[in-house]
Amino acid sequence: NVNVNDLHRGKAENGPNGVPKLMDLLDEPVPGVGTYEDFNTIDWVREKSKDRDRHREIATKSKESVLALMKSISDAFSGWLLMLLVGLMSGALAGGIDISAHWMTDLKEGVCLNGFWFNHEHCCWNSNETTFQERDKCPNWKSWAELIVGTNDGPFAYIMNYLMYVCWALLFSFLAVSLVRAFAPYACGSGIPEIKTILSGFIIRGYLGKWTLVIKTITLVLAVSSGLSLGKEGPLVHVACCCANILCHLFTKYRRNEAKRREVLSAAAAVGVSVAFGAPIGGVLFSLEEVSYYFPLKTLWRSFFAALVAAFTLRSINPFGNSRLVLFYVEFHSPWHLLELIPFVLLGIFGGIWGAFFIRANIAWCRRRKTTRLGHYPVLEVLVVTAVTALLAFPNSYTRMSTSELISELFNDCGLLDSSQLCNYANVSVTKSSSNALPDRPAGQDVYTAMWQLSLALVFKMLITVVTFGMKVPSGLFIPSMAVGAIAGRLLGVGMEQLAYYHHDWVIFRGWCSPGADCITPGLYAMVGAAACLGGVTRMTVSLVVIMFELTGGLEYIVPLMAATMTSKWVADALGREGIYEAHIRLNGYPFLEPKEEFSHKTLAMDVMRPRRSDPPLSVITQDGMSVEDVESLIAETSYSGFPVVVSHESQRLVGFVQRRDLVISIENARQRQEGVVSASRIFFTEYTPPQPPNSPPPLKLRGIMDLSPFTVTDHTAMDIVVDIFRKLGLRQCLVTHNGRLLGIITKKDILKHMAQMANRDPDSILFN
Amino acid sequence: NVNVNDLHRGKAENGPNGVPKLMDLLDEPVPGVGTYEDFNTIDWVREKSKDRDRHREIATKSKESVLALMKSISDAFSGWLLMLLVGLMSGALAGGIDISAHWMTDLKEGVCLNGFWFNHEHCCWNSNETTFQERDKCPNWKSWAELIVGTNDGPFAYIMNYLMYVCWALLFSFLAVSLVRAFAPYACGSGIPEIKTILSGFIIRGYLGKWTLVIKTITLVLAVSSGLSLGKEGPLVHVACCCANILCHLFTKYRRNEAKRREVLSAAAAVGVSVAFGAPIGGVLFSLEEVSYYFPLKTLWRSFFAALVAAFTLRSINPFGNSRLVLFYVEFHSPWHLLELIPFVLLGIFGGIWGAFFIRANIAWCRRRKTTRLGHYPVLEVLVVTAVTALLAFPNSYTRMSTSELISELFNDCGLLDSSQLCNYANVSVTKSSSNALPDRPAGQDVYTAMWQLSLALVFKMLITVVTFGMKVPSGLFIPSMAVGAIAGRLLGVGMEQLAYYHHDWVIFRGWCSPGADCITPGLYAMVGAAACLGGVTRMTVSLVVIMFELTGGLEYIVPLMAATMTSKWVADALGREGIYEAHIRLNGYPFLEPKEEFSHKTLAMDVMRPRRSDPPLSVITQDGMSVEDVESLIAETSYSGFPVVVSHESQRLVGFVQRRDLVISIENARQRQEGVVSASRIFFTEYTPPQPPNSPPPLKLRGIMDLSPFTVTDHTAMDIVVDIFRKLGLRQCLVTHNGRLLGIITKKDILKHMAQMANRDPDSILFN
Repeated sequence: NVNVNDLHRGKAENGPNGVPKLMDLLDEPVPGVGTYEDFNTIDWVREKSKDRDRHREIATKSKESVLALMKSISDAFSGWLLMLLVGLMSGALAGGIDISAHWMTDLKEGVCLNGFWFNHEHCCWNSNETTFQERDKCPNWKSWAELIVGTNDGPFAYIMNYLMYVCWALLFSFLAVSLVRAFAPYACGSGIPEIKTILSGFIIRGYLGKWTLVIKTITLVLAVSSGLSLGKEGPLVHVACCCANILCHLFTKYRRNEAKRREVLSAAAAVGVSVAFGAPIGGVLFSLEEVSYYFPLKTLWRSFFAALVAAFTLRSINPFGNSRLVLFYVEFHSPWHLLELIPFVLLGIFGGIWGAFFIRANIAWCRRRKTTRLGHYPVLEVLVVTAVTALLAFPNSYTRMSTSELISELFNDCGLLDSSQLCNYANVSVTKSSSNALPDRPAGQDVYTAMWQLSLALVFKMLITVVTFGMKVPSGLFIPSMAVGAIAGRLLGVGMEQLAYYHHDWVIFRGWCSPGADCITPGLYAMVGAAACLGGVTRMTVSLVVIMFELTGGLEYIVPLMAATMTSKWVADALGREGIYEAHIRLNGYPFLEPKEEFSHKTLAMDVMRPRRSDPPLSVITQDGMSVEDVESLIAETSYSGFPVVVSHESQRLVGFVQRRDLVISIENARQRQEGVVSASRIFFTEYTPPQPPNSPPPLKLRGIMDLSPFTVTDHTAMDIVVDIFRKLGLRQCLVTHNGRLLGIITKKDILKHMAQMANRDPDSILFN
Repeated sequence: NVNVNDLHRGKAENGPNGVPKLMDLLDEPVPGVGTYEDFNTIDWVREKSKDRDRHREIATKSKESVLALMKSISDAFSGWLLMLLVGLMSGALAGGIDISAHWMTDLKEGVCLNGFWFNHEHCCWNSNETTFQERDKCPNWKSWAELIVGTNDGPFAYIMNYLMYVCWALLFSFLAVSLVRAFAPYACGSGIPEIKTILSGFIIRGYLGKWTLVIKTITLVLAVSSGLSLGKEGPLVHVACCCANILCHLFTKYRRNEAKRREVLSAAAAVGVSVAFGAPIGGVLFSLEEVSYYFPLKTLWRSFFAALVAAFTLRSINPFGNSRLVLFYVEFHSPWHLLELIPFVLLGIFGGIWGAFFIRANIAWCRRRKTTRLGHYPVLEVLVVTAVTALLAFPNSYTRMSTSELISELFNDCGLLDSSQLCNYANVSVTKSSSNALPDRPAGQDVYTAMWQLSLALVFKMLITVVTFGMKVPSGLFIPSMAVGAIAGRLLGVGMEQLAYYHHDWVIFRGWCSPGADCITPGLYAMVGAAACLGGVTRMTVSLVVIMFELTGGLEYIVPLMAATMTSKWVADALGREGIYEAHIRLNGYPFLEPKEEFSHKTLAMDVMRPRRSDPPLSVITQDGMSVEDVESLIAETSYSGFPVVVSHESQRLVGFVQRRDLVISIENARQRQEGVVSASRIFFTEYTPPQPPNSPPPLKLRGIMDLSPFTVTDHTAMDIVVDIFRKLGLRQCLVTHNGRLLGIITKKDILKHMAQMANRDPDSILFN
């Protein structure tokens, strides 16, 4: 089993990434070589290769001593430990956010006399054992009017409450936007577009830092409590990713390697959704489907572990006091009929149309914010939107309550004891005495009132969310989208129910909806509508269905959810290709190579590569012909991030590729440390340096910083293949050859610009490398 | 937005894959060019490129006429239609298999007087409304002894039943093995190793054909009914893949493209598990984690759809009459305590050790079968193993029942009304009157008897499964592995339960296991044990936990399952790297590049490439210097599957790569059809043919069959990067260059051989390209 080819390799000792080690005085690697600048893309191949080298070194050493063996074992388990910590920390933070947001939301309406730190529900539970339904009659909870003017009745008290509601909302949102602007500008928004970009290999320093975490956690609570039309689910993903990034610093393996750290961040995205919806499996699928770029199977398994840990941490904190992880957990009792698929598909169409409309409107508004004077006054913008939201929301009980509560009420299947307005049905003698299933009944007056209020709430939510998402406060989109869908679904559901009650002799209802039967569940319609709208906005598919499945816990409701989500995605895709996150990525000009979309044009590598025909020839470095001065002037004249190294200008035969940053650092380092290196010194990238003529300055050997295995494609390679290679291997650049001669270069940015051009968009919208 | 580089491309009209179209008389592509031979690996890049071309063509045409638009739409939806058909067909077949196997298993013990086509349960349900517990007293069901000698008592009747049991088993297994040998040799085994290899890009013609489907379906029923220690779950995956492959022939898109067809097969694998375990989400994850190689997000979504369709088809067939998809669906009622994680981890260790032992023993036995005379008598082998199984199984009631029933009984949580031997506890006054949760009670005599019988069954199952898996009948491994684990788990569970009952004052039980409380669920232990053993054998992780989660439907049991599966995988991995499927792939010498395992050696491309230093130089074709005769003799002298095309022998500058098969077909075709092409004709791979001297035979232009974008790496590229490229892009071969000159070639087989060598295995065990 001796490797017969050892001889082939000659004497070259090889270091990381197939790069021979420096064979001169510079035995130690120069600090800074191999790192990246801010707002640049990492080279996945190089990072993964670095990690394999590290792993190999540890594995080799582990055979030598017990200590090294221990180190190797601890290294192997550090990933799991990190996952455990991420799960615990994110779960705890999510619990804290839930509890604080709940308390502060209630604070807008009143205060608890037992202690101001109790929320409405907790206050009433503490004082006496009233049931949830009687919470309004709880004596210890005082609305602001009661507290100030002593009564809750009359127009004056109403105005008092109204005013306090608006004031608190303004205070919260002012605090939120000020904190974001003062301490952590990256804390605004949902964070998912940026996390997608970071996971695809981009570097935004500080985006996942500790300040962002602290400020985002605090301002998220404030923003949610202010009653703005936004949710905490998206930002929770950002919070979990911040936790993961900070915890990565505890482990060398993850601190030093950008690719490994992104594996952890992928898992953290799963954790975020797991705690946001109490759906660990859905969270993992969300990370896989929606945000992750590189998701090896090992990460799948670890994400699942972390998501479970986080879910159990949150459950043990029990923020809602019902041992559920989300407010809108629901269990349905009656099955659905095949014919109901028609309204479900209608909801899907509504969701798709709304999703496409929302994306367009929101992007137009965000573009206006970017280009006009509007963007100069973010605090004022937030205050105005908050004031409008609060003023319009208070009079309608469905917009006054927090959006999660609204969704919870809409999903709810009316039971016998439900006192909510939406469950006010005319009493008909109950024929079957089954546990919780009630037959369809005629709607009472309250239900009709609720329908009107819900219709108004629908219009309000649809419009206000467009201007809210993208403001300079943490803002998630899941909850507002779901609310829109849930309202539409409930309206349709109640409509269907009444139709079936009054016209059960119609052909379509005959056979499955006899009088006195419980045939239509309006709550299920609300849930299907919520899934459809969320699907239309985000274009999630499997993960969305699984999240909803974990919210209901019944396999049988998967089919309605799937029908609606599928329809919604198709309709939305027909009206506009991108989901909201991709649209925001494009708006910000991030270099994100969408892994889902196929590149379908018939161009070749030669059409995309630089230099173009009219451009000056490609800037190259020869392997042994240039002096330090030549290279320095080349660096000064150009702004390319790297240069190909060739045998000679005439042959253009490729030797390797050297990064600009590495070149600059190495020359600077050599000038300072290596004796005799001056501007006239020749730079060698060859394996052996030929003897220099006497009196010439000592040569500078830089083979160590050269990538000896640059990726190449031929000029006739179809661009769809090139795009595929870039995506799958995570390249930054690729060299183009023709019959073995170097012809040009294609970078990730070139590809994105080309794709933008092909789609009739402005290629200059791609801002970063 | 005009593409400024159109000029660059010159006049070359480009066809599929960037390959310029033939510009001579041969306008039509030669039939056979671009196809593959049996037992060869496909080129994923080429196949995907072909599909994109096809798609592009349809998209362009769709703008021209309404008919073309309709075609384009139907093309877009054909994938979904195909998925629907696969789901329906697989679900229906699975239902048929379940029903037939159930009936034939019962046939070994007796017959129904109402009609021989009723199984035991059905027979008794039909005749009068006895409950499931009283099925033994059903008058219409006659055991063979009752039918023949009129009584079921006494040693003679026992022997009679025994004899009939063995005879039926022998008959079934004889039929199974004879049918497999006579009509479809590919129908044997579980099929999963081969499907993994096929999905990774290998071609085995007929492996998923109609004969395999028919024979596998029939013989699967026979093999399961014969009482051999095997399951139907793995083969169901094969059956679903056969369905998918056959249905692919209905759609050009999938019939013509090997890569697209593999997407459908990945989804079919999910369908197989979905119907085998009633777990659609688990099935999709199984396909993703265990069998698939190329799994784009679109496939994820479609797999999920197909898996759901199949599950609902199976549910509507309702093979078990309880509206569940599997026999061993179970619902637990009591929570578990944190301390119970210790026995769960112990079960994990047992599972891991058993898994590693089973793989070694089974592979050793299969190798013996391959190398010694044992392999010459497959029918005899099956008959002997069946006879031994039947003879040993009959006396023990736990081995006599079908393995699914056994697992179902072991998973079962003893209720108040359970009459099974395992639930025979001493009656203690029930303190709490909760629905189905019983306090821990002392075990009765029957339980102790059952423990003995189960211990014997455990040893029996462990040994007989080793020789059964790999015989020439369809045989799955899931059920026997789960049975071993479930027995071990139940034994441990009952042990723990009794320990807790008699020693509830011990420190470890204090606080959570007071007398009269229901603290330990032996059924849960059985389930955890089953997961652990299955995990040890197959090394599945997330998918296994999700499948088990879908079997129980309670999120809270995920943690025990996860702890056991994780431990089991770690222990098994420490004892042997490979799962059973990888081990069988290696045993058969299939060219499978494991996507999970990292390549961790420090070799370079130059160490792996051919020609080695001592070999003759690389066989190349020059782009304009060779005659038909030269090329034909090159083909005759070598057996390589392709040749690089270079500018000239001196420069060794690479132009492209041409497949042997395409070259042979094209030359043959040209000799027959093109006038004047003789042995002396020169072959040109250049874009333009220089004018030929007068009287020379007309030249043969073959640029059309040349791949103009062959993949290249430099000789200094680290092998871990090369392996990564092969895996991610699905390459067949890659050319190696040094400073722009062609140096050698690396094929998938070279890589696999190198990996085998590095792992101290025989590199010649890799048999195929």
